[in-house]
Amino acid sequence: MSKEKKIITMAEKAKTASRYIASLSSKDKDALLHRMAKLLTERSDFIQVENRKDVEEARKRGVSNALVDRLILDDVRIQGMADALLEIARLPDPVGVMDQFKIRPNGIQVGRMAIPLGVILMIYEARPNVTSDAAGLCLKAGNAVILRGGSEAFHSNTAIVEVLHQALQESGFPKEIIAFVPSTDRDSIHTLLKLNGTIDLVIPRGGEGLIRFVDENSRIPVIKHYKGVCHLYVDQAADLNMAMELLVNGKTSRPGVCNALETLLIHEKIAEAFLNRIEKELRLKDVVFKGCPVTQKYFPQAESATEEDYFAEYLDLKIAVKCVSSVDEAINHIEKYGSNHTEVIATQDISVAQQFIRGIDSSVVMVNTSSRFSDGGQLGLGAEIGISTTKLHAYGPMGVESLTTKKFVVLGEGQTRE
Amino acid sequence: MSKEKKIITMAEKAKTASRYIASLSSKDKDALLHRMAKLLTERSDFIQVENRKDVEEARKRGVSNALVDRLILDDVRIQGMADALLEIARLPDPVGVMDQFKIRPNGIQVGRMAIPLGVILMIYEARPNVTSDAAGLCLKAGNAVILRGGSEAFHSNTAIVEVLHQALQESGFPKEIIAFVPSTDRDSIHTLLKLNGTIDLVIPRGGEGLIRFVDENSRIPVIKHYKGVCHLYVDQAADLNMAMELLVNGKTSRPGVCNALETLLIHEKIAEAFLNRIEKELRLKDVVFKGCPVTQKYFPQAESATEEDYFAEYLDLKIAVKCVSSVDEAINHIEKYGSNHTEVIATQDISVAQQFIRGIDSSVVMVNTSSRFSDGGQLGLGAEIGISTTKLHAYGPMGVESLTTKKFVVLGEGQTRE
Repeated sequence: MSKEKKIITMAEKAKTASRYIASLSSKDKDALLHRMAKLLTERSDFIQVENRKDVEEARKRGVSNALVDRLILDDVRIQGMADALLEIARLPDPVGVMDQFKIRPNGIQVGRMAIPLGVILMIYEARPNVTSDAAGLCLKAGNAVILRGGSEAFHSNTAIVEVLHQALQESGFPKEIIAFVPSTDRDSIHTLLKLNGTIDLVIPRGGEGLIRFVDENSRIPVIKHYKGVCHLYVDQAADLNMAMELLVNGKTSRPGVCNALETLLIHEKIAEAFLNRIEKELRLKDVVFKGCPVTQKYFPQAESATEEDYFAEYLDLKIAVKCVSSVDEAINHIEKYGSNHTEVIATQDISVAQQFIRGIDSSVVMVNTSSRFSDGGQLGLGAEIGISTTKLHAYGPMGVESLTTKKFVVLGEGQTRE
Repeated sequence: MSKEKKIITMAEKAKTASRYIASLSSKDKDALLHRMAKLLTERSDFIQVENRKDVEEARKRGVSNALVDRLILDDVRIQGMADALLEIARLPDPVGVMDQFKIRPNGIQVGRMAIPLGVILMIYEARPNVTSDAAGLCLKAGNAVILRGGSEAFHSNTAIVEVLHQALQESGFPKEIIAFVPSTDRDSIHTLLKLNGTIDLVIPRGGEGLIRFVDENSRIPVIKHYKGVCHLYVDQAADLNMAMELLVNGKTSRPGVCNALETLLIHEKIAEAFLNRIEKELRLKDVVFKGCPVTQKYFPQAESATEEDYFAEYLDLKIAVKCVSSVDEAINHIEKYGSNHTEVIATQDISVAQQFIRGIDSSVVMVNTSSRFSDGGQLGLGAEIGISTTKLHAYGPMGVESLTTKKFVVLGEGQTRE
C-alpha cells in the first residue's frame, strides 16, 4: 500500500472509530482517561528511554538549550501529563448537554444538543505533552483524534501513543480512536489536509510557518492563531500603580508566551508621569523599550520604534510604546497592528472602559487585569486545546466545548406543516 | 484600475465600513431596516421595470417556466421583501449580548459578548429577494455584506441594491456597508474567495455546482449545505396514523425544497401494515416509490431501488423506501446515505426515540414531527440566512446569531498572575 493510501485508510478508520467514541457514556470516557493517566505513570521509564533518543538527536543537531529543554520528559513532567488527563476527567462532559429549549406556538419543542465534531487532526511541533493533552481533550468531547507531531519529538510521541493505545485496548475500545501519523514529512500533512469528507477540524499548534502552511493547504476548516501581539492601554483615568503592576506582570512574568504584552499605549496626558515611573521601576530594568517620539521625550533611553515594532511579537524582554491622544486612537492602533489575541485597558473611568470593551474586537478584552490570565485554565475553561484568533466557530481560548457542535432536537406529537 | 483591483478595493472598503456598522446601536440599525423596507415599497415600480429585463432575457434563453417564475418580482413579492426587513427589525439585536458570566477564584469576572463577524460574502443564484434578505440579516448582526448575485437576476439585483444604497445615504451611513459585485463572471468570485484577510465568512446559496465551486476555491471559511436527503424512520412502535401524516406532509406538501422527505425507512415488523396503508393513501397516489425487495413484496407497484436512489435528493414526487430490522440499522443507513440535514423518527417508544436522538448526528433530529418544520422561521430563529450541514461554527438552520461570534470580556481590579 502506498504511503498516501495508508494515511487515507488511517483517517477513514478514525472516522469509523469516531462513531464509537461519540456513543460512549461520560463514565466510560472518564474511566479511560484515568487508565491512560495510570499507564503513563507506570510506563514513565519506557517513555523516558524513548525520549532520550529525541533529546540526543536534538543535541547532535545543535538545537538551542531552550528548545532541548522543551523536549525533555522526566518523572515530574510525565506525572504532569498524567495529572492533566485526570483534570480533563474531572471536567463536566460537554456532550449531550441540551439548552435553548423552547416550545413553539404549534407545540413542537425545539432545543439544541451538544454533539462531538467527529475527527480532529492535531498538527503540532516540539512539546511531547501535547500528544496526551490533545488526545485527552478530543476524547472527552467524544471525538476521534489524528495526531501528527513534529520530527523532533518523534520517538517520545510514538512511545506516548503506544501507552495510550494500551489503555484503549485494556478498556476494550478500538485503538483507532487515537490515530498517530507514523511519519513527519510534509507529504503526510498534504494528504491529510485534503480529507475534508473524513476529518472535521484541523488544529495546528507551533510556529507561524507551520500554521501558515496548514492554513494555506487545508480543505478542512482550520482553527489557529498566528501570534499574540497583546496591548496594554494606560488611560488618562488609570490608577498608575495598578497600571504599573499590569505592565510588569504582562511583560516580565513570562515573556516567551503568546499572552505576554508586546505593546504599551499611553494616553499623552499621563505619559510623562507614567514614563517617569517606568524609568524608576526596578522590575523593568532589563526590558528594552522602543518608543514613539513623545515616548522618547519623557523616556530618553527608549530606542526609536519603527512600523515593524508595532507589528512585532517579540516573545522577549522588549516592548513597543506609543503615546496616543484618546481611547479611540488606542482602539484604532490595536485594530491596525493587533493580532486579535488579548488587549487590556487600565482605567478607573467606567465609560472609557465600556468604549474600549465595545470598540475592540479581539478575542479577549480585559479591564484592569493582566494579559497573562488569557488562557483556558485561567478563564475557567478547564484545560485548553488552543487559542483561536479567527472568529469562526471559536474565538479566544478553546476548552472541550469548542470540540463539539450543536444539533437541533425537535420533539412533536405528529405536527405537520400547512 | 483592473477588474481584480476594483473588487479588492471594494472588499477593503466593506471591511472599513464593517467597523462603522459594528458600532451602531440597535435603534439605528432597526431604523435603517425600516427605511430600507419603506423605499423598497415606494420604488416598487422601478424595481419591476428592471426586473422585466431579467425576465425577458430568461424567456429568450428558453429558461423553464418554473425558473422564470422564481425570478419574477411583482407588487406582492416586493412587499414581501419589505415585510421580511421589518420582521428582521423586530428580532432582538444579537450584538452585545453577554452571557456565561462567572467570577473566578481570584476575583476576575469572565463573560462572553456577542460581536459581529465583520464582512460576509453572499454568493447566490436566482431569487432576487435574497439581495434584500441577506443585506438585512447581515446588517442586523452588525456586519458589512458583499453581495454577488447570479447573472439571471442581474438587473433586478442592481435595482434592489440601488434602493438599499439610497436608504443608507438618507440615513447618513456609508453605502459600502452593502457592497455589490457589478459582474457575474466566475473571475470575480475567484478574486473574492482569496481575500481571507478581508472577508470573514462566505455563504453560497444555490445549486450544488455553485456551492462546490465556492467550497473548492475558497480561502475563507464557507458555510454551506449541498443537499437535503431527509429521512423518515417509521419504528415498530410508531403510531401508524401519525407516521402516515408525517410521510404525506414531508413528501407532498412541497417536494422541491430541501426539507422534503427523500427516503422512508420502515421497521420490518410493521412494514406490511404500513405499506398496505400507503397503497390506499390517496394523497400519495402521484408519488413514485423506489423500494428494496422487502418493500416490493408488500407493495408491488414500487420500482426497484438502486444504491443511487438512497443517495438521491429527488426534489420531486419520488421517494426511496427501505425496510430495516432495527433502529440501529436505520441509524446506520442514515449515516451512510444521509446529508446531515434533517431526520425524523415516528415512534411512541421513548427509549427508541432517545436512541435515535443520540445516534443521529444530522443537524436536525426530530421525533414525531414533520421534516418540513426544519427551517429557521419554524424553529424559532426568526429569519434564516441559510442552513449549514457542516459542523463548524453553525449546524442546521442559521439565524442572525450565526452571523456573530463571541469574545471574552474580563473585568478585574488589578489582578496579576503569579
